[in-house]
Amino acid sequence: MACELCDNDGGALIWRDARCRAVHVAEPGYPGYCRVIWNAHVAEMTALGAGDRDHCMRVVFALETALRERLHPDKVNLASLGNVTPHLHWHVIPRFRDDPHFPNPVWGRLLRQPAAVETPRADLIAHIASTLSGL
Amino acid sequence: MACELCDNDGGALIWRDARCRAVHVAEPGYPGYCRVIWNAHVAEMTALGAGDRDHCMRVVFALETALRERLHPDKVNLASLGNVTPHLHWHVIPRFRDDPHFPNPVWGRLLRQPAAVETPRADLIAHIASTLSGL
Repeated sequence: MACELCDNDGGALIWRDARCRAVHVAEPGYPGYCRVIWNAHVAEMTALGAGDRDHCMRVVFALETALRERLHPDKVNLASLGNVTPHLHWHVIPRFRDDPHFPNPVWGRLLRQPAAVETPRADLIAHIASTLSGL
Repeated sequence: MACELCDNDGGALIWRDARCRAVHVAEPGYPGYCRVIWNAHVAEMTALGAGDRDHCMRVVFALETALRERLHPDKVNLASLGNVTPHLHWHVIPRFRDDPHFPNPVWGRLLRQPAAVETPRADLIAHIASTLSGL
């Protein structure tokens, strides 16, 4: 069966290793929206062995750290949903009080019209890549 | 400042240890909806030390395992949002193709009217408690 995350990076590739990758997602109003995507087609975290699970979360938390260091969001949202694309991926979303949905989840009701998609800040992407390269 | 998750369990308590707790949430259409709530008032996963972070995720994944074993959901959704209540808590939500929002997130558009809240299955709660007691 065709899977979007088997066939594509799923965003602008920032970093990858043998097990997973981090991408930046062009989402209007969310300049720091990233995802961690497991490379193999697996649906659930508990379908991974303990070592793989730990590695995946280490990448998610390193990404959260890098985003917090550069963007200082009011909150970070982490989510592994996959109802539409059941290929393991984590949304790592810096949230701000004036972003399009805050305090709703980004999947909830839109409260403010987002500006056009901005080009991601090169310094942010470089900082994420540098943080993850230490893993 | 008053915090709902400092002042209350945040659901029907299933299990707790010195660091966190697991609760069942009465959510119409979602009989297996649980949360893992960190006991101390901390907003982000990366505000925890590495050991606490690992412990928190071990509880989340043990809960996911217990829910999968008993309910066999089509997907599990995991999320740490906290925009409204910035006290670390994980939503652990078994999802089914015929649930009220599937394939939308539970915070997205409602697609089917949920039935009334059901009393949680005693065997499910006992199975979760037994799984978590091994941690």
